[in-house]
Amino acid sequence: MDFLDLARARRSVRKYSDRPVPRDAIERCLRAVRLAPSACNAQPWRFVVVDDPERRRQLARAAFGPLAGFNHFARQAPVLVTVVMERASFASAAGSLLSGKRFSLIDIGIAAAHFCLQAAELGLGTCMLGWFNQRKVKRFLSVPAALKAPLMISLGWPVPDTETGPSSRKTIERVRGYGGY
Amino acid sequence: MDFLDLARARRSVRKYSDRPVPRDAIERCLRAVRLAPSACNAQPWRFVVVDDPERRRQLARAAFGPLAGFNHFARQAPVLVTVVMERASFASAAGSLLSGKRFSLIDIGIAAAHFCLQAAELGLGTCMLGWFNQRKVKRFLSVPAALKAPLMISLGWPVPDTETGPSSRKTIERVRGYGGY
Repeated sequence: MDFLDLARARRSVRKYSDRPVPRDAIERCLRAVRLAPSACNAQPWRFVVVDDPERRRQLARAAFGPLAGFNHFARQAPVLVTVVMERASFASAAGSLLSGKRFSLIDIGIAAAHFCLQAAELGLGTCMLGWFNQRKVKRFLSVPAALKAPLMISLGWPVPDTETGPSSRKTIERVRGYGGY
Repeated sequence: MDFLDLARARRSVRKYSDRPVPRDAIERCLRAVRLAPSACNAQPWRFVVVDDPERRRQLARAAFGPLAGFNHFARQAPVLVTVVMERASFASAAGSLLSGKRFSLIDIGIAAAHFCLQAAELGLGTCMLGWFNQRKVKRFLSVPAALKAPLMISLGWPVPDTETGPSSRKTIERVRGYGGY
């Protein structure tokens, strides 16, 4: 499978089967994360995996309460991964401060993309979730108060979802320019 | 090449040959970007490619002035790509506001990862750059004042760099947890 096919195979999956996800598949996704680039090579992330069914159920309850709305589906995912943003290196933090950009959030996106693409290659489905109760999730997972958890990823074996097709995309003309904006 | 090999093959390349990069290779990277997921499918990005040698030289001068320090190498890259952060969809912007996270920066990271992984598959080298003169770059490329350009990517055919090996990475134990932080 070439990369373009892999990028196409990766879909945001919102229906999962009950079949458990083996730890070695999860580990492979984490190895792909580990190779991701980051500003000043700070690698400002920790991926916290919850795959124990009972604990996963409790985490889902904390994360996706009555206000979770469209993320309710994630309660059914057999694995929930919470991406914790670690303190950046001094160089990266200083760069973020001086440039007014949050390099670490870009880094989190890069690492999460590696995770989801590796999962797709294994036939696993993922969905990145930004909308959840971060305060409760952090408490449940004992994440240090000073750190943020900006992203969760649901993971599992996809069930064909007859309700949704592939997401639409902007035309290529709208996402690129040559020579200038 | 499986995904883990591809992730390993992608290196932050800081030495490029003079050989030009064909447009169809750049287009392929942009097609991979187009498939990237984003919060609420907002796709809040535009990739502005500068590959004309003279214009690329001018952009490099604007981007990497005397203060560019360790990014001086990027002046030699035959292609410079500037990632402009477009306005998010209403849903994504509202989510960012309510959650105190910048979903769009995470999305930029995901899209940039797609670009660099596709480039690596084609044998091309890339380096993501967060440290450049954003004000001058935006003016040079006629980017609307209201938009940010948080990231640049250098692109070209790598030249073996005897000075640097692969970047070090944290051990897998430091970047993952099971059950809790």
